[in-house]
Amino acid sequence: MECITSLTNHRVKEVVLYVGKAKERRRADVYVVEGTKMFMEAQTQELSEVFVSEQLLARADEELLARIKQLDGLPGVCVWQVTDEILRKMSDTQSPQGILCVLKQKHYELNELLQTENPLFVVLEDLQDPGNLGTILRTGEGAGITGVILSKDSVDIYNPKTIRSTMGSIYRVPFVYVENLEEVVHELGKRGIVTYAAHLKGEKTYDGFSYRKGCAFLIGNEGNGLREQTAALADHFLKIPMRGNVESLNAAIATAVLMYEAAKQRGFS
Amino acid sequence: MECITSLTNHRVKEVVLYVGKAKERRRADVYVVEGTKMFMEAQTQELSEVFVSEQLLARADEELLARIKQLDGLPGVCVWQVTDEILRKMSDTQSPQGILCVLKQKHYELNELLQTENPLFVVLEDLQDPGNLGTILRTGEGAGITGVILSKDSVDIYNPKTIRSTMGSIYRVPFVYVENLEEVVHELGKRGIVTYAAHLKGEKTYDGFSYRKGCAFLIGNEGNGLREQTAALADHFLKIPMRGNVESLNAAIATAVLMYEAAKQRGFS
Repeated sequence: MECITSLTNHRVKEVVLYVGKAKERRRADVYVVEGTKMFMEAQTQELSEVFVSEQLLARADEELLARIKQLDGLPGVCVWQVTDEILRKMSDTQSPQGILCVLKQKHYELNELLQTENPLFVVLEDLQDPGNLGTILRTGEGAGITGVILSKDSVDIYNPKTIRSTMGSIYRVPFVYVENLEEVVHELGKRGIVTYAAHLKGEKTYDGFSYRKGCAFLIGNEGNGLREQTAALADHFLKIPMRGNVESLNAAIATAVLMYEAAKQRGFS
Repeated sequence: MECITSLTNHRVKEVVLYVGKAKERRRADVYVVEGTKMFMEAQTQELSEVFVSEQLLARADEELLARIKQLDGLPGVCVWQVTDEILRKMSDTQSPQGILCVLKQKHYELNELLQTENPLFVVLEDLQDPGNLGTILRTGEGAGITGVILSKDSVDIYNPKTIRSTMGSIYRVPFVYVENLEEVVHELGKRGIVTYAAHLKGEKTYDGFSYRKGCAFLIGNEGNGLREQTAALADHFLKIPMRGNVESLNAAIATAVLMYEAAKQRGFS
């Protein structure tokens, strides 16, 4: 294991760029995860670099040390020991956990996801909050969704805040960014996947539909909801009833209520 | 309307303390809200101070100006015009909306909440994330809950991040902090309110119970869940099934799924 002791080391500067900017992540086709849990769950073939702090190495348990040692010998993976100061510089969090990895981005194919029998999709239009996106992935894995389809102007799924909120689901829930969301919603319809727009003008309460066959929930931007032209392509408008003076639910909450209704109808199996 | 132009003005310094520290808010028995929506929805009798920036005054619409003017004449309410710099200093947000109010804290009585027929409570034990708490209030208002009961070590409901996430529900959803949560859970039981602990060891799926009569959902801390001794006091353990490798759901998400199941059973009326 080689050591990096300089804050101006080239690799360190690169990682700082990856953590800070979606554009830099896309350019290098990588993303960064932090913490022991995320490190331990990372697939070997997706890892390209591991940075571990002296402090963590000194107090690491056997399992963690064994995994670090195993990776250190592999071609295609660089394992670096860094000072705590360097790790703090690279980290997106207030209290870094002492380990940070660079991984290759995943590239799922919409066509493959569409082969799933009776799929359950979440379609996000211009979602902006990284925490909401991460929470949707985490809840989506729990509810057993097939995948998430995102408009190209949605927040980057590899934003460090998103990754943190997924609690590991970033590794497991398939997702695709699409150029033209309207086209994709149209395509879903052609394939017999029923599309439901979550909309304040929904004519029917969400529990009034059957989600047992292939279906997709269309969820709009936090501030503005779905665009009218996107919503118009949906087979149905649904509403989540709200009492009191609530104007809307948080996007991740609304999506969770819908996904768990579908999961329940599908028998939680 | 009087003007404040000094960053070291006593009122300005006090508000900075209120925004930053739960202890200072408690000492003065006040809280601070930001933005036009929160200002317009605030009850007159709860307002004690309003700070509005020159910039906002210059571009305010008629409705906003009328409300500011109305309050300016009232005894017990101080309306201050401040520089943009002062407002930025007092604000908790990156891009302040130009208006900030100090309000008197609300004090609900548990005994009064318990008078409600077939109440629906959410009981939070040591919840730590301000965003989660705010989201629970917002979703809770939508689902029609009676109120939220919090252990004394939970995050302060008047934390600026909590208030922001409530989107105004802070004004409308009753809440009570209690010294001894176990005692209160016991009290709920004595009053015939059925208590459900959301627990990974839940014996039955959440949709297998009826929530039409008075009931309460017990939700634990984000990291550790419910304490064993608190969970043990519940009438039932319930689980929210999770597929994949998901270890738990986000606390606000889990609470939302439960509250909306109850709302649905109660007929969304």
